[in-house]
Amino acid sequence: MKHTPSESESIDNERKHHFIGIDIGGSLFKISECRNCQWNHKIFSTERYDDALIFLKQLVAHDAELTISATGGGSYRLSREMDNYLPCNYQIIDEMEALVLGAVALHDSEMEYPFILMNIGSGVSIVKVESAEVYRRVSGTSLGGGTFRGMAALLAGVSDFKELLELAARGSSQGVDLLVGDIYGSDYSNCGLKATVPASSFGKAGLSSSIPPNCKPEDLVYSLMLMICNNLAHISFLNSQLHNVQRILLAGGFVDGNGMYIQMWLILI
Amino acid sequence: MKHTPSESESIDNERKHHFIGIDIGGSLFKISECRNCQWNHKIFSTERYDDALIFLKQLVAHDAELTISATGGGSYRLSREMDNYLPCNYQIIDEMEALVLGAVALHDSEMEYPFILMNIGSGVSIVKVESAEVYRRVSGTSLGGGTFRGMAALLAGVSDFKELLELAARGSSQGVDLLVGDIYGSDYSNCGLKATVPASSFGKAGLSSSIPPNCKPEDLVYSLMLMICNNLAHISFLNSQLHNVQRILLAGGFVDGNGMYIQMWLILI
Repeated sequence: MKHTPSESESIDNERKHHFIGIDIGGSLFKISECRNCQWNHKIFSTERYDDALIFLKQLVAHDAELTISATGGGSYRLSREMDNYLPCNYQIIDEMEALVLGAVALHDSEMEYPFILMNIGSGVSIVKVESAEVYRRVSGTSLGGGTFRGMAALLAGVSDFKELLELAARGSSQGVDLLVGDIYGSDYSNCGLKATVPASSFGKAGLSSSIPPNCKPEDLVYSLMLMICNNLAHISFLNSQLHNVQRILLAGGFVDGNGMYIQMWLILI
Repeated sequence: MKHTPSESESIDNERKHHFIGIDIGGSLFKISECRNCQWNHKIFSTERYDDALIFLKQLVAHDAELTISATGGGSYRLSREMDNYLPCNYQIIDEMEALVLGAVALHDSEMEYPFILMNIGSGVSIVKVESAEVYRRVSGTSLGGGTFRGMAALLAGVSDFKELLELAARGSSQGVDLLVGDIYGSDYSNCGLKATVPASSFGKAGLSSSIPPNCKPEDLVYSLMLMICNNLAHISFLNSQLHNVQRILLAGGFVDGNGMYIQMWLILI
């Protein structure tokens, strides 16, 4: 005989199948809801956290016993607002712990330890992961996705990430970067550097013949992407060598939907 | 009896005491002349190499048997112009060799091996030096002095290095960079990061509330200097750990007269 759940059982079941996790980073306020095994994701600007709170309040309506699990720096900074405004529980999870557990859960079947986890958000954390329980933030850099957006806003007047990716896809770094070939006239073979390698990112923009610099916005954004990508690949490679780790896993908002970045990375590493 | 030199002996003596070395980098064309143990240095823009050639021609007048020793990428690129225009010999010395020998000569009495030599010109070379004869370029980055000048030209309309240093000295990164405290509201003590550390260089400039970005030129140039300096300190530190080397020696045009850079470096390392 089929069991018909009582009203209280229905609510209990719903509760068991309703999870909300949020990540409040330097730029983005990310909300993920799972209801009956269906995931929904929504992203707000961290600056507009009011809008995110209104959205969250709707999600948790009639579910005062739900617990929102929060991570990211903003989960600490906004904890008072969360407690005051939301009619449910709010718990902060350490960012590194959530990051590692998330990476392990997503790659469980194919995961081999140890690996370097590069989390590229506004800033960048580099974590050495030896197992789901043993991990350590070994390094980090302030040149991340926030640098790309911020500099692009200043250089090209655009800060929307998707627009920037479209702009960069039409750009070239030849008129902006000083290439090995610009300096040597050819490859610098003594050091194994090809003529097409950027010797100095944005190096051409500071030459007096370029003042006022007449580079096109798409070229500036492309060079910026190349600079950030080169640098992150370099730093992750040094860390992987230093910690004797073969595998590097990329995560974070800067990587999400950024095919150009992945392509550059694969060429570099 | 005092020996009175003959005319040919005088010329020979002068020749022995007359040396010219040049370094033609991505941005700067540096000329150093030693005449009778007196050193003179003159710097031109590599773009205006015509002016440098006229100056060099004057230096070598009446001394056709002098040999100019040249290094830097431009020494290859401009070798035909040199041969055609200058009435003396011209020999190219490998840049890394000249760099290491120069560093060893300047620091001979206090030098302890091994050391990491960071040569920060337009671009950056990182050399592991085990002795004056045994050295290897182990790493490098395109984020160097040329990046500072180029981006500063684009962001603040100034590319003269001295002017930029003066501008940066009046700046602050608080309105430009996204600090750990901006994200977390305080220190991120789990990872040992203080609230005042930049989490994302230029991260504030990409936030929608800052578009159009209203940062002051001096703040942009200061943040740029901090970004380049942080990144170079980071990369040199990773290399020193990777190669098990305690000492890091800084060289190159970006360091010359750049007290702010040295100060930042000392804080970071």
